[in-house]
Amino acid sequence: MTEVSFETVKAAAKRLEGHVVRTPLIKNAALDTLSGGNLYVKPETLQHGGSFKARGAFNRLLQMNEAERAAGVVAWSSGNHAQGVAFAARELGIAATIVMPTDAPQIKLERTRSFGATIVTYDRFTESREEIASDLANRTGAVLVPSYDDHDVISGQGSIGVEVAEDFAAMGESLDALIVCCGGGGLTAGISLALSGLSPATKIYTAEPEGFDDTARSLAGGERVANDPAARSICDALLAPEPGHITFGYNKRFVEKGLVVSDDEVRAAIRFALFEMKLLVEPGGAVALASVLSGKIDLKGLNAAIIMSGGNIDPAMTAAIAGDEHSA
Amino acid sequence: MTEVSFETVKAAAKRLEGHVVRTPLIKNAALDTLSGGNLYVKPETLQHGGSFKARGAFNRLLQMNEAERAAGVVAWSSGNHAQGVAFAARELGIAATIVMPTDAPQIKLERTRSFGATIVTYDRFTESREEIASDLANRTGAVLVPSYDDHDVISGQGSIGVEVAEDFAAMGESLDALIVCCGGGGLTAGISLALSGLSPATKIYTAEPEGFDDTARSLAGGERVANDPAARSICDALLAPEPGHITFGYNKRFVEKGLVVSDDEVRAAIRFALFEMKLLVEPGGAVALASVLSGKIDLKGLNAAIIMSGGNIDPAMTAAIAGDEHSA
Repeated sequence: MTEVSFETVKAAAKRLEGHVVRTPLIKNAALDTLSGGNLYVKPETLQHGGSFKARGAFNRLLQMNEAERAAGVVAWSSGNHAQGVAFAARELGIAATIVMPTDAPQIKLERTRSFGATIVTYDRFTESREEIASDLANRTGAVLVPSYDDHDVISGQGSIGVEVAEDFAAMGESLDALIVCCGGGGLTAGISLALSGLSPATKIYTAEPEGFDDTARSLAGGERVANDPAARSICDALLAPEPGHITFGYNKRFVEKGLVVSDDEVRAAIRFALFEMKLLVEPGGAVALASVLSGKIDLKGLNAAIIMSGGNIDPAMTAAIAGDEHSA
Repeated sequence: MTEVSFETVKAAAKRLEGHVVRTPLIKNAALDTLSGGNLYVKPETLQHGGSFKARGAFNRLLQMNEAERAAGVVAWSSGNHAQGVAFAARELGIAATIVMPTDAPQIKLERTRSFGATIVTYDRFTESREEIASDLANRTGAVLVPSYDDHDVISGQGSIGVEVAEDFAAMGESLDALIVCCGGGGLTAGISLALSGLSPATKIYTAEPEGFDDTARSLAGGERVANDPAARSICDALLAPEPGHITFGYNKRFVEKGLVVSDDEVRAAIRFALFEMKLLVEPGGAVALASVLSGKIDLKGLNAAIIMSGGNIDPAMTAAIAGDEHSA
């Protein structure tokens, strides 16, 4: 395992070309009017597997040798990393086993299975996904692909930062601020490393749901603190118990501040994305947008990028939010 | 009014730079698997006003002189052209009056109003929108902006064809086929003219809903035929009574064939776009995608582009389709 740096992120971005979707930056007049800024949304909802996770997965799997590929991969995930790994594994002809919580959104379980992966379920609140996955890896010889606390995975997610920086440079615009959805912190760490090399003046903010604001509190206190195990949120993609060990090492250096939003603010952001931007986003993928729409950060007069990290939301929840005029 | 040609379309594409969103081409693995082709979707759902209509509107309004601008503009529309004209008018500081059917989707009425336009309603099945709008224009001196049968409007919509051709050229790929959603035929005519200059080998297909397949039947017979006034469809954006006079003159030269889809096939396409592609599309904007998903055209082994022309669907219909597992 190599150390992670701006160089490894840049190399990952190059390695991923042709394997992942280079997602566009999306401009929306209503969003600019509401925020008073010059905002661009990066919709990783359009990525293979419906979230940014395919990036880290490909970056890890593409570096496996023949013997490793033959033994397959194992991962644990609430769903998006599962789909990212399953998609990348199928494309590269590698067998994948994914450990997923029983209460993961139905669409994430189905999609992961549809990519040909074997699924092993566990109870999110009583069992350890890490132990189940490690045990599987030990018994089968398969390579474990962590969802965030891993150098290759962090570098892969960082390719988003490379694309954002390149696109802003191509437009001749500076990037003043970037807001990223944060669970374990791998996406934040990767993007931060990318911008440390390509746009060091950019201020980086994390966004998290209430009850899972471990990164915000850890940043404020300077050391890793965990969430209350009793906490619940509709943001199923962001329920990591505490900041990653590796990821927080970078995030405490690079992140300006952690923003926190309520589930209701997330629902309003999902509805805004759907009807104002015509983009379907899942709860965990909408926290960065929610932080802007709910006024948690002032972007007046600034050039900013908002990461929309995933779109794997169940049809039933989509129907409920689309039909609820009070969540607007 | 100038004649329309490849040159006027190219000039429009240039004129619109900075005024409209250059929408990306979106790749989706599930769509490629289902079709067996190498497909790209052009989501004009991400355009200002939620559909391609802002293009034609800007192209017309940007060419008005000071005296014309001071007198304002009038348009009739089921909703998307209304929003396109209202958005462009607001951006350019021109007053807009829009004649809209009483049964237009609520979201289209609200959005048009939100862009500062004055709305005059009429009954789609008993009154003539053309007469009401012409009368308004005559009495106020305002400029009438037709929704499709107009040279400047056709040239503006054609900028989509310029972008598609440029993007395929940049990828080093040929464009074998393009499928476009068709109402009055302005979008089809504009794109056809663009490709006649930039990619003449591309085969162009229109897609229409059952009951409003006037272009398909007119193409088959070689002359314009109208729809049964009793026909109904959920595709509110595509309810033109017959092909435009100007538009059909081009479309009969350039279009290979007209494809026709049922409302149920449209619902399934909306659901596919939402959950597989994470894009919200309205019924009329989904007919081209529906024609591919329902097997109306064989794209196996071909490079093709599908125009997704608009995303202004009511929340209630969105909730109903998202929640209906039988429409998948």
